[in-house]
Amino acid sequence: MYQFIKNGSVTSTKGFKAAGIHCGVKEKSKKLDLALIYSAEPCTVVGTYTLNKVKAAPLLISRDTVKKSKYVKAVVVNSGNANACTGEEGYLDALDMQKKCAEGLNIRQHEVLIASTGVIGQKLPLNKIISGIDKIIPRLSTKGGIDAANAIMTTDLKVKSYALKVKLASGNVTIGAICKGSGMIMPNMATMLAFISTDAKISKSVLYDILLESVKKSFNKISVDGDTSTNDMVILLANGASDILIEKNSRDYNLFKDALDVICIKMAKSIVSDGEGATKLITINVKHAKSEKEADIVAKSISNSPLVKTAFYGGDANWGRILSAAGQSGADIDPAKVSISFDKLPVLLPNYKLVIDEVKAAKILAKPEISVTIDLGNGLKESTWWMCDLSEDYVKINANYRT
Amino acid sequence: MYQFIKNGSVTSTKGFKAAGIHCGVKEKSKKLDLALIYSAEPCTVVGTYTLNKVKAAPLLISRDTVKKSKYVKAVVVNSGNANACTGEEGYLDALDMQKKCAEGLNIRQHEVLIASTGVIGQKLPLNKIISGIDKIIPRLSTKGGIDAANAIMTTDLKVKSYALKVKLASGNVTIGAICKGSGMIMPNMATMLAFISTDAKISKSVLYDILLESVKKSFNKISVDGDTSTNDMVILLANGASDILIEKNSRDYNLFKDALDVICIKMAKSIVSDGEGATKLITINVKHAKSEKEADIVAKSISNSPLVKTAFYGGDANWGRILSAAGQSGADIDPAKVSISFDKLPVLLPNYKLVIDEVKAAKILAKPEISVTIDLGNGLKESTWWMCDLSEDYVKINANYRT
Repeated sequence: MYQFIKNGSVTSTKGFKAAGIHCGVKEKSKKLDLALIYSAEPCTVVGTYTLNKVKAAPLLISRDTVKKSKYVKAVVVNSGNANACTGEEGYLDALDMQKKCAEGLNIRQHEVLIASTGVIGQKLPLNKIISGIDKIIPRLSTKGGIDAANAIMTTDLKVKSYALKVKLASGNVTIGAICKGSGMIMPNMATMLAFISTDAKISKSVLYDILLESVKKSFNKISVDGDTSTNDMVILLANGASDILIEKNSRDYNLFKDALDVICIKMAKSIVSDGEGATKLITINVKHAKSEKEADIVAKSISNSPLVKTAFYGGDANWGRILSAAGQSGADIDPAKVSISFDKLPVLLPNYKLVIDEVKAAKILAKPEISVTIDLGNGLKESTWWMCDLSEDYVKINANYRT
Repeated sequence: MYQFIKNGSVTSTKGFKAAGIHCGVKEKSKKLDLALIYSAEPCTVVGTYTLNKVKAAPLLISRDTVKKSKYVKAVVVNSGNANACTGEEGYLDALDMQKKCAEGLNIRQHEVLIASTGVIGQKLPLNKIISGIDKIIPRLSTKGGIDAANAIMTTDLKVKSYALKVKLASGNVTIGAICKGSGMIMPNMATMLAFISTDAKISKSVLYDILLESVKKSFNKISVDGDTSTNDMVILLANGASDILIEKNSRDYNLFKDALDVICIKMAKSIVSDGEGATKLITINVKHAKSEKEADIVAKSISNSPLVKTAFYGGDANWGRILSAAGQSGADIDPAKVSISFDKLPVLLPNYKLVIDEVKAAKILAKPEISVTIDLGNGLKESTWWMCDLSEDYVKINANYRT
C-alpha cells in the first residue's frame, strides 16, 4: 500500500534536509548547480553504479565510501561538470570536495558521498564548489528537496522529484527521491543520478538486495540513445527515523520492495520522457519470450534503434522496423511467430499476417504516450522497457553540448 | 597493381552487360527502380548476407541459389520495395520474379539471382516487375552499369559505381562493382546491396575465401546508425572471360585479393559518406589493442554512439565522448592508458593528460573527412572503421520514410 505525496521529494522523508544553490560551475547561467542532502541520523547506504570502464572520480570515491562506511550522513552533488576523465588531479579534487563538505557539516569524511554530472574531461572548478559548500550548508532545510532536484539537472527540462507514503504492517514509512538524466541514457545506468531516502530501518545487506531488484526493473530498462555515462549512480539512504524495522522476506519487506519499484519506475520513466529532444514516451512490452534475458535483448534492441526511434517521432506505424530491430538483436527468435500491436490495436499477426488499420494506427502513434507489444510466441517470459523517440532536437542539443 | 577505371562499373568487366529502368515500384517519382546484370558466360558466384534473423524472401532465394547452383548468369534487382516481412506470398512473388527473368533471358531459373531493397512489409508490386523485366532485357548493354547502379538506389544521394583494372602476373583482369546503401548501415552488413563482377577465372571455394576476407575489412566495419537490414547482400560474380586463372595462394591470388579489398573499401566508404543526413566521413583507427576483436569492439562502439556522431556533426572536439564510448564498449581496456588524436593532432595522452589545442582541433573537425586515432596502449592489434555523423537530416529522412 502506497500513496504519492504531492510535491514530494527526498526531504519528504523524516529526518532528511536538503538544499540547492548556484555556485558558479554552470558559468553561462544562474541555474542551480550544487545540491546537498543531509540526515543527522546516520544512514545505512547502498548504491549501484555505471558499468562504463571509464568511471568518474566522484563515482569511484562514493563507491568506495558506500562499501567501507557503516553509515553516511550527507551527499553533495554538483552539476555542470562531471569530473570525469580528469586523471589524478580530478581524483584529488573530488577528495577535497568530500573533505570540505565533511568539515562544514562537522562529520567525518567517510560519512559524505559525492557526485558530479555534466561535461566530461574538464577540470572541476574546485574553488567554486568549496565556497559553494560554505554557502549551501546554512540553507539545509526540510523543504529543500525540490531545490536539490533542480541543482542536479543538466539538459533536463523537468524537475524529477517524488515521494511515497508506504503503509506497512508495522507502521508508515516514507520513500523520497530525486533524480536527473536526459541524454546518454541506456540500459545499465545512464548519465543519470538518483538519490533515494527512506526513514525505514533496514540493514545494509537487505537494503542492497532491495535496491538491486528495483534498479533491474527500472533504470536498467530505459533507453534514450544507447550511450552509457561515466558518472551514473543510484544511491539509497535509510536513516531509520521511523523506527520501523524491515527484515528480509518479511511481509513488510515485500510491501516496501513494491513501493521502491514504483518510485524507481516512476523516475526511470520520467528520465525517458524528458529524454533529450524526446516528444514521446514509448513502453515496449516483449511477451512470450523463451527467457527474461531474451525478452530484454529484444526490448533493448528495439529501444536503441535509431530507425525505430525516428519512426515514432514521425508518427509512422513502421512495424517492419520494429520487427527488423528484434531480428538483429541477437536473440534466437523466429520472426514468423511474432505478432505486434500498438496500444491494443493488432498490427501484425504470426506468419507476417498484416492486419493494420492505418487510420487507427496513425491516431495511436500521434499520442505522447504509446505502448507497443511484441509477442515472440516463443515461451512464457516477458519484459517491459521504456524508450523515447529521436527528433531533430536531440541532434541540436548534442551537436554543441561541450562548446 | 591496380588502377581505377574512369566511370567504371559492373559492366567495365569483359562479358558483362547491364541495364536500369523505371518500372513503377517507386510510385511517386520517375526514378529508376529495376536493374539487371547479365553475363552470357556462366559465372562462378559467392555471396555474404545479413545476420538479421528477419531475412527478406529474395535474400533467402538468392542465398539458396548461390549455394546450389554451379553457375549463374543474371542478377535482377528492384528498389522501392524490400519484399521483406511479406510471408508466404512475398516468397512466391520473389520466386516469380526469378522465374520471369530466367524465361525472358532464356536461361534456367537457378541461374538467376534476385534482390530487393526499400520499404519493409509491403507487398511487392509483382505485375510492375514482371512487365519491367520484359522492358529491361532488350536494354542490356555493356554501357548499362551506371544505369543499373542508379536503379538500385533508395535514399542514396550519390551513384556508387567503380571498376579496377588489375595487373596480374599472368595478365590483366577487371573488377567492376555497383552498390547502394545509406541508412540502416551497421557492421555485418546493412541495408546495402553490392554486386561485383570480374572476368578472372576463379573456383567457387577460392572466390568465397577472397570475398569473405574483403567483406570483413570493408562492409563489416562501417556504421551509419547501428541498424542491420533484412535484405543486405554482397554478390561476387566471376565469368572467366579474361581466361586468367587465379588459384589459391598464388602470387596472383594475393594481387587480386588486394584489389578486391580496395574496391570493397571504396564502396564501404562511399556508403558511409552518403549516409542518411551525413555531412562528414570519419575514419576510426583503433591501435594497440589486445586483439583485433577488442579493436573492433571499441571501434564499433564509437562508430555507433549517437553522442559521438552528433559531436562530429557539431564540429565539437568532444574526446570525452569518444573515450566514454570506448569505455562502454565491453572491451577490457584501461582508460588511463588511452590516447586520442584527431588527424595528426594529439588531443589526449595517457593518464588523462589533456594536450588539446582547441583552435587546431576545431579546424580539423570542420573538414568533411576526419581521421581519429584511439590508441589503447594495450597490445599490438588494430582495426579501422568508417562512420558518419548524425544530423537533423537523418531524423527528417527517417521520420517519414514509409508513409
